[in-house]
Amino acid sequence: MLDNAALDTLFRSARTHNGWQARPVTDDLLLQIYDLMKMGPTSANCSPARIVFIRSPEAKARLKPALTPGNLDKTMAAPVTAIIAHDLKFFDRLPKLFPHNPDARNWFANDPKAAEVAAFRNGSLQGAYFMLAARSLGLDCGPMSGFDNAKVDAGFFPEGSLKSNFLCNLGYGDPAKLFARSPRLDFAEACKVL
Amino acid sequence: MLDNAALDTLFRSARTHNGWQARPVTDDLLLQIYDLMKMGPTSANCSPARIVFIRSPEAKARLKPALTPGNLDKTMAAPVTAIIAHDLKFFDRLPKLFPHNPDARNWFANDPKAAEVAAFRNGSLQGAYFMLAARSLGLDCGPMSGFDNAKVDAGFFPEGSLKSNFLCNLGYGDPAKLFARSPRLDFAEACKVL
Repeated sequence: MLDNAALDTLFRSARTHNGWQARPVTDDLLLQIYDLMKMGPTSANCSPARIVFIRSPEAKARLKPALTPGNLDKTMAAPVTAIIAHDLKFFDRLPKLFPHNPDARNWFANDPKAAEVAAFRNGSLQGAYFMLAARSLGLDCGPMSGFDNAKVDAGFFPEGSLKSNFLCNLGYGDPAKLFARSPRLDFAEACKVL
Repeated sequence: MLDNAALDTLFRSARTHNGWQARPVTDDLLLQIYDLMKMGPTSANCSPARIVFIRSPEAKARLKPALTPGNLDKTMAAPVTAIIAHDLKFFDRLPKLFPHNPDARNWFANDPKAAEVAAFRNGSLQGAYFMLAARSLGLDCGPMSGFDNAKVDAGFFPEGSLKSNFLCNLGYGDPAKLFARSPRLDFAEACKVL
């Protein structure tokens, strides 16, 4: 069981950040995030998420034209912006990832629609593991859906089987630039016990 | 920052469970899971996940015909099985959830494809928050994609705007029934730093 401080860090006090302190994010931290998030469950251990960490000014400039105006300045200012993507051909890695069933590749290789759904579902799960792993390590996140997926895919994944899912700024947030916390649905609005 | 014990509970030692101890999961714990998971980020705070907690023998019997053979016995034996679903009409709650922009509802209400993609992406993120919240509270999870979504939707969501995403058994796992841990992709196989 986690203590209250840990639950605050992950869920209760954690916020989506819009401003960033001038404090870099090391390569070692990026590796630590991945080494935690990769352990989260995916169906048939399919692990379709692929991540591009954008840090150099050159790579930031390539991302820039895909961003909506509201996400532009904060993304250019973030120490790192992660493209959370998934590989529609994730099934080619199943011989490594799901070694006890050599047939698993065929469940998806012969059914592109099933592969697309599994990649999006499980890649999104892994995107959430990514954010909670980053928070676990003391980082703040700024996830965004406000960008042109087709432009990101054309610019960063020209080979065609990787699709961008969402973007996530990473760094140490500036609490002065937080928005007010928005309300959530109550248990009775979102859940039922049968 | 979380300590090593917390990182083990969430990621490193946590496993997908197949067998369950005879130890019930209280209503209060279900509420605590939700109160943590609801704080995780979703785009425009859209919060599309809806959860049905199946505990009674009657509700378990309604779920049974939708399960694949490999998921049948363990699901019937689990103290609780959660249907993680999402509401394709989540945008009707945006006036509560995103009060500072009254136009947000129209981004989705007039674009069913955008609504479907946002519901699936963000509902999946919330499904991951759900599992990590449950683990935070000392519970074990057994997530599954192996079931007939159309049968679950017909049986539990006949009104039509809710769609099942995945199922997750909940309880206190029996370590004797764990499978061997499967390999994960290395950082260099899944990530790039630009």
